Amino acid sequence: MRALVYNGPESIELKEVAVPTLNKPTDALIKITMTTICGTDLGIIKGKVPDVKPGTTLGHEGVGIVQEVGTAVRNFKKGDHVLISCITSDGTCEYCKKGMYAHCEDGGWILGHLINGTQAEYVCIPHADNSLHHIPPGSDEEALVMLSDILPTGYEIGVLNGRVKPGDTIAIIGSGPIGLAALLTAQFYSPAKIYMVDMDNNRLSVAKRFGATHVINSETEDPVQRVMVETKDGVDVAIEAVGLPASFDVCQRIVRPGGHLAVIGVFGHGVDLQLDKLWIKNITMTTGLVSTYTTPMLLKTVASGKLEPKKLITHRFKMNDILNAYNVFGNAGTEKALKVIIEAEGVTIHKAVSGEKKEELSR
Amino acid sequence: MRALVYNGPESIELKEVAVPTLNKPTDALIKITMTTICGTDLGIIKGKVPDVKPGTTLGHEGVGIVQEVGTAVRNFKKGDHVLISCITSDGTCEYCKKGMYAHCEDGGWILGHLINGTQAEYVCIPHADNSLHHIPPGSDEEALVMLSDILPTGYEIGVLNGRVKPGDTIAIIGSGPIGLAALLTAQFYSPAKIYMVDMDNNRLSVAKRFGATHVINSETEDPVQRVMVETKDGVDVAIEAVGLPASFDVCQRIVRPGGHLAVIGVFGHGVDLQLDKLWIKNITMTTGLVSTYTTPMLLKTVASGKLEPKKLITHRFKMNDILNAYNVFGNAGTEKALKVIIEAEGVTIHKAVSGEKKEELSR
Amino acid sequence: MRALVYNGPESIELKEVAVPTLNKPTDALIKITMTTICGTDLGIIKGKVPDVKPGTTLGHEGVGIVQEVGTAVRNFKKGDHVLISCITSDGTCEYCKKGMYAHCEDGGWILGHLINGTQAEYVCIPHADNSLHHIPPGSDEEALVMLSDILPTGYEIGVLNGRVKPGDTIAIIGSGPIGLAALLTAQFYSPAKIYMVDMDNNRLSVAKRFGATHVINSETEDPVQRVMVETKDGVDVAIEAVGLPASFDVCQRIVRPGGHLAVIGVFGHGVDLQLDKLWIKNITMTTGLVSTYTTPMLLKTVASGKLEPKKLITHRFKMNDILNAYNVFGNAGTEKALKVIIEAEGVTIHKAVSGEKKEELSR
Amino acid sequence: MRALVYNGPESIELKEVAVPTLNKPTDALIKITMTTICGTDLGIIKGKVPDVKPGTTLGHEGVGIVQEVGTAVRNFKKGDHVLISCITSDGTCEYCKKGMYAHCEDGGWILGHLINGTQAEYVCIPHADNSLHHIPPGSDEEALVMLSDILPTGYEIGVLNGRVKPGDTIAIIGSGPIGLAALLTAQFYSPAKIYMVDMDNNRLSVAKRFGATHVINSETEDPVQRVMVETKDGVDVAIEAVGLPASFDVCQRIVRPGGHLAVIGVFGHGVDLQLDKLWIKNITMTTGLVSTYTTPMLLKTVASGKLEPKKLITHRFKMNDILNAYNVFGNAGTEKALKVIIEAEGVTIHKAVSGEKKEELSR
Repeated sequence: MRALVYNGPESIELKEVAVPTLNKPTDALIKITMTTICGTDLGIIKGKVPDVKPGTTLGHEGVGIVQEVGTAVRNFKKGDHVLISCITSDGTCEYCKKGMYAHCEDGGWILGHLINGTQAEYVCIPHADNSLHHIPPGSDEEALVMLSDILPTGYEIGVLNGRVKPGDTIAIIGSGPIGLAALLTAQFYSPAKIYMVDMDNNRLSVAKRFGATHVINSETEDPVQRVMVETKDGVDVAIEAVGLPASFDVCQRIVRPGGHLAVIGVFGHGVDLQLDKLWIKNITMTTGLVSTYTTPMLLKTVASGKLEPKKLITHRFKMNDILNAYNVFGNAGTEKALKVIIEAEGVTIHKAVSGEKKEELSR
Repeated sequence: MRALVYNGPESIELKEVAVPTLNKPTDALIKITMTTICGTDLGIIKGKVPDVKPGTTLGHEGVGIVQEVGTAVRNFKKGDHVLISCITSDGTCEYCKKGMYAHCEDGGWILGHLINGTQAEYVCIPHADNSLHHIPPGSDEEALVMLSDILPTGYEIGVLNGRVKPGDTIAIIGSGPIGLAALLTAQFYSPAKIYMVDMDNNRLSVAKRFGATHVINSETEDPVQRVMVETKDGVDVAIEAVGLPASFDVCQRIVRPGGHLAVIGVFGHGVDLQLDKLWIKNITMTTGLVSTYTTPMLLKTVASGKLEPKKLITHRFKMNDILNAYNVFGNAGTEKALKVIIEAEGVTIHKAVSGEKKEELSR
Repeated sequence: MRALVYNGPESIELKEVAVPTLNKPTDALIKITMTTICGTDLGIIKGKVPDVKPGTTLGHEGVGIVQEVGTAVRNFKKGDHVLISCITSDGTCEYCKKGMYAHCEDGGWILGHLINGTQAEYVCIPHADNSLHHIPPGSDEEALVMLSDILPTGYEIGVLNGRVKPGDTIAIIGSGPIGLAALLTAQFYSPAKIYMVDMDNNRLSVAKRFGATHVINSETEDPVQRVMVETKDGVDVAIEAVGLPASFDVCQRIVRPGGHLAVIGVFGHGVDLQLDKLWIKNITMTTGLVSTYTTPMLLKTVASGKLEPKKLITHRFKMNDILNAYNVFGNAGTEKALKVIIEAEGVTIHKAVSGEKKEELSR
Repeated sequence: MRALVYNGPESIELKEVAVPTLNKPTDALIKITMTTICGTDLGIIKGKVPDVKPGTTLGHEGVGIVQEVGTAVRNFKKGDHVLISCITSDGTCEYCKKGMYAHCEDGGWILGHLINGTQAEYVCIPHADNSLHHIPPGSDEEALVMLSDILPTGYEIGVLNGRVKPGDTIAIIGSGPIGLAALLTAQFYSPAKIYMVDMDNNRLSVAKRFGATHVINSETEDPVQRVMVETKDGVDVAIEAVGLPASFDVCQRIVRPGGHLAVIGVFGHGVDLQLDKLWIKNITMTTGLVSTYTTPMLLKTVASGKLEPKKLITHRFKMNDILNAYNVFGNAGTEKALKVIIEAEGVTIHKAVSGEKKEELSR
């Protein structure tokens, strides 16, 4: 089968590899119908995630069809259409029992990281009963690719950790895919005002279309000053969705007394935390890797139309063209790319086609 | 009347000043029977709190007797024995309505800071209805002085913010009065293991007597290594009770995935926050100034014997001897001092005398 | 001045009474610009609330203009436009400090109940600082009358007590004003499915327009059977918004394991609670009188357009015509009435007039 | 092997049956070392649980040694000492993912109910990975039998559902094993006052020894009157631990405004819920079957000495004498029995023997 393989820093290749086989009775083999690329994949290629061994198939997102299941798999059978969680969960360890699948003692984020991932024709999913989700018949499967990682991440680590509440004023620093995922899911809680901060006007205009009430281009305007003037004593919730000291710093300066600072960004370095100013402000700061415990709930909100994940998709490629997809996604600014879909060759899958959603497709 | 007045950095004086008068209908005039000294008072004297104007009477803790009340005070009358909260609360602003009295728009920490405080014969308490508490008849009033600041601070900012739960393993960095207050109140929630870290063996032996299950002298042993070896992946709750980068650093290194880091310390500088290690650990960090919203509850636990605040008192002085009290408290290590009581001259007050508590007094 | 006075069971009268005077320094005198009638007022007239003494002016809802304030009132001054809370709160008692203003020891629901109310030209509001809210300039004051009681009641006692969450399936039994208030505010939390049950098709069609996804006329269809068939094991949240044993019974039969049953209804009798079926279902049931602690938040959601309270207003009358308003509201079914506005004579107030809201007015 | 078999109403028999065999790869076969009898077992014998088919081995509590595991069991191996949860959890269904194992779609309470139970030499445990717990080396295994059902039930359904908090005044109606389990675990949260109500003076004296601060014999004193006089407006938490209308009625009359009523009792009939009095009191009522999600935490509190489950054991029998054990437990009042231990023949197990605990044994 063909797979996108990491050969070491700055080197990926689409090449023939063996189809994975089931190793344990709890494994399932999935035929991938659609996958996508994450910012983390770009980080791996840059050599920032040294745990990834050369020879590893990348990718931790996707939907597919069950091809084969181990003898201990109870919830899935050949032919089932499934959503793959970016997090593998054994369902029995101390962390899993608390819903902290991110820290599963025999799982966590391993796909396309410590084991072969989803940017291939097939993938072997460990602990399938707890790491896959049934796709309801009639669903737009393409849209659901957004539920493997990005939407639960924005929701769990940004919105829920940040305790967004009705009537709140919130700010999201970073209007890339993950910030936009936080923006979409923050609206589940009806905040009154949503500031979106980025340096890319295209992304800010997308944010506006997605529900931001205020946008700030931090290249041309000081977001701290603007927010503090307009809100008097800061925002109820500041969501960091970049992963850099500068964006963290904006957050710590605009969070109001009693407010929440939710860090979604993946950080490569430490930051200067101004405890001399913050000790007296009664703030709560959170960090985290997604556990995807909200995926079943997100599936319900997609079904009910409260959430339209498809909005995040800007480009589509066939699997054979995945290197080009990496190029586009790697130059997201000039390409005006958010999320890109990579579709298996020759697979017919269900996509929404009617009405408003059709128009969405044509963008 | 006599009052302990701040004359500017490194200068305090016990001198005659005018008895305060009521300024607003919501004020009350309290005759102080007992007060104490806080670490913050030492900070003021060192010039670290420039908001304090020379000429200000220090002190934000104490118990006393109501001498006079403004026309709008409804809950207190002349002769009532009262506990003074270190936090003044107007009870009507946006923050007070959320229970965040620390950020009261017409109050917060103002006593002995922005207005004259309690280290005097009399003090004027603004918004008396929301800033005083009735002392139940028969109470040991000396013990209750610990409820003005230190116990609610350890409890709200350490224990409650840190979400201490039954069965938890927790660590408190700093075994001074505030760390010990956190230690005493953490036991409301029955943690299984309590590590106490300090550089003073006397304070660690006090901690042991107060319920710590493990003590670490961080001068002779690396607390991070010890805790990580013994707990496998860290503590559920790390409570910072010093206010220095080094103690914060211990906390951020020992908090387990999904754990809480509660900062009680007052920081004069920023710290290096290792977000590169913490982003993936799903931690929650909190800061804060006490609101004293738990004081009514703490009064109940004192009455029921679940909490014995008197344990924190090591020295007693008369008001005329307050400069000596400052000396002792300022050299807490060599003096083996925790909290010192300063008693008004010639006032007869109720102290517990029977059994175990008597022995406590003689230490 | 003119006031709507309760003369005893089945007897109300619009008559001349003395303008109230301030009794305490914490009182404020308000000139009423608009008020409304509550279902509770109809209950009083039927003699169901024997605490109401003949001679009492009815009404606990309304907006107005501050005419005079007591010497201890700090937050309001003559000329301020204010929203009157149906709940009076002293802000200092044990219950108020917990945000449970409903049980204020010197307040709670007293307006138009134990003291004279708002269906008059003037009303005296005790504890004004904690019982009034500033109306932001430019607000549609008519819409805000809905925030005196009905919207915080539906929100606090239905939605928040019921813990409505994104993705939930919920059911509201009763599509009168209070059930519709719960319906509007439940949508702050983006439930996936909302069942609305009533016996009045007009009210159900209103519910549909207000966001219900499923409506059931319980006269022609068994709501229990329908809900259980469609949801498999019941609803996440059942909200009782009638106050009768039959509607309570529907709720207890449709709540799923782990679900919530929030009782908003005012009950005149006990009900049969099927603990033999419910003991094993891990349900949570709540009851309550509103505290209006969410009013500041609701004001923000109105300002941001997330909430349009005006939708609930179907009829408008002048104060001189209030008896007619009672007739219409008392025959809500045939009159297709939801909430009725009673406007002071000769007062010019701000109403929204532009665009969609104008159309709203013409309905 | 020998097993205690239910032959139909009023008939149980200790007889030879086949040793169970593993049916599924997720099963484990456990050699029972100690088990106990639950009030529910008595109910089954009285014919109150018609789901139990004649021929079923009773019992849902116990500790033992793993004899054999299915191919998909990962966490346990032959020879492991294990605690058996009364609740079977598949760890993958919608309810299990929420921690509501009581409602597991392929489990819940099935042991000694829908499948053969633990009152035998061997038992087959389905979904072993999620339904067993490792016993730490050196533990007093006898004490841990109390963690199969009774302690997590008292804790989860009584204490946690009832939200017992430091400083609270609580009441537990029923001082049998389950009420006492609630009493022991309530103290994790340091309530100030604990009322215990029962009609058996022996049980009340046990309650006093276990930490109750007030006891009321409801045969000789009206508990409602006593509690209301002493507490002014009722208790913060009322825990129903009997399962009868009369005990429920006490609870609903003594719960204060804003308080919690936690129903632990198993009810055979409905009750009269006084919504006419309760609608205005803002109470929260909960019901439930235990999920045992707190068992890992309870194991920690036993290890730390915060919880001494052994206190609940009053009698010990050998397996061959189990019918006698049923007699004693069935006449708990005259026998002064709380929990009885039934020990396997010829098995040597670890029991605590030192100091204080030895004395405990001799009581």
